[in-house]
Amino acid sequence: MNIILVEKKDFVNESNAVRIAGRRFTHIKEVLSAKVGDLLKCGELGGKMGTGEIIYIDKSHVELKVSLTEDPPRALPVNVVVALPRPKVIKRLLQNITTLGVKKIFLINANLVEKSYWQSPALSESEIKKQLILGLEQARDTILPEVTLCRSFKIFVEDKLPGIIKGKKAILAHPGSTDPCPILKNKPTTIAIGPEGGFITYEIEKLISIGFTEISLGKRILKTETALIALLSKFES
Amino acid sequence: MNIILVEKKDFVNESNAVRIAGRRFTHIKEVLSAKVGDLLKCGELGGKMGTGEIIYIDKSHVELKVSLTEDPPRALPVNVVVALPRPKVIKRLLQNITTLGVKKIFLINANLVEKSYWQSPALSESEIKKQLILGLEQARDTILPEVTLCRSFKIFVEDKLPGIIKGKKAILAHPGSTDPCPILKNKPTTIAIGPEGGFITYEIEKLISIGFTEISLGKRILKTETALIALLSKFES
Repeated sequence: MNIILVEKKDFVNESNAVRIAGRRFTHIKEVLSAKVGDLLKCGELGGKMGTGEIIYIDKSHVELKVSLTEDPPRALPVNVVVALPRPKVIKRLLQNITTLGVKKIFLINANLVEKSYWQSPALSESEIKKQLILGLEQARDTILPEVTLCRSFKIFVEDKLPGIIKGKKAILAHPGSTDPCPILKNKPTTIAIGPEGGFITYEIEKLISIGFTEISLGKRILKTETALIALLSKFES
Repeated sequence: MNIILVEKKDFVNESNAVRIAGRRFTHIKEVLSAKVGDLLKCGELGGKMGTGEIIYIDKSHVELKVSLTEDPPRALPVNVVVALPRPKVIKRLLQNITTLGVKKIFLINANLVEKSYWQSPALSESEIKKQLILGLEQARDTILPEVTLCRSFKIFVEDKLPGIIKGKKAILAHPGSTDPCPILKNKPTTIAIGPEGGFITYEIEKLISIGFTEISLGKRILKTETALIALLSKFES
């Protein structure tokens, strides 16, 4: 937790003081061993960042006087379209993508995505938000990404994706490709990554038909989550 | 498992046939549903890669006639020095670094590494080898990285590290730094990454004194394992 994120509901009346309990309290008390007078990095979810001075602390609550005047780091200019990974990986993937500054994430179906993955509790709204918050707290950012679940590959690619990639670069990371990854720095881009077994030929052709370019990340075959971090790290926010 | 890795002991007499059981057999039989006559990607640990034709399969063994003539992908020109992460992360970190093509890994102590981490069963020789093999199987590579455990930061940095970085670039990824990451592609480099809480000032000064340059990976603070993948993906093998 590199920043204490507060929400509207944490503010005491209309003041600049917040009162928090639970996980954030435990972190402040036990990990940071903070005491009255200490200044902590704070941010308002969806808003500005700055500092919070501890003005009161007891066994279960801490109160901070916050001063939030700085903008959060700029978003990465990248939308991520990724085939739904297995449940164990979903959480880490959402956290990592958030930490790297992506603000639009589409979890989509694909032929080699096991149907049961869509039943994972990790896909509930509250579980997703939990991972996104953990990602923001790690990165020191305040802007939640939007996560969209797309259970039909065909409908998503035909009806939604053309609008999403309009006017942007659209690249498809695929181990079969031989074209090296272009220089991506700062260019608004949508990146698509398949499931562990890869997109099937029909899916690749479909993505190419609407404007995606296949690229390779080298001779080695990376896991989805590794490939995604590798690709995202080629951009700058 | 994107390649079936075989070892000297798997070869039947002095022939080009290998006989394998266990995890690799299960993968061939159950995941690939392979049968006699099928050609699989194979490689010899520490040696060449190519194909293996299934010549026999029963309930617990498979025999393949292998033809191994291709070189494995070139190594990434990077040595990694990383503060020992918590046990849960060690395995994934070793796999990921291996998948990305690093051939020299130093797991070192640092002030903010919890002493108990050094007792983790994940650090036994057999557990480490297991993760490295999983990384090679994912990447489609045959060359095992060397992993060295360095339980004293001071002794490692004073006595060993100067020899390791001699004639190479040496960079230290540190969230406090403001210098952007230089272009690294193809340049022999040693990268150092601290523990979750970062290297302490003494450690940073020590690394800088022997030739490391501090760099930043952007405004966001990344986890050790994310930062490592992000950095390694800036190189090409």
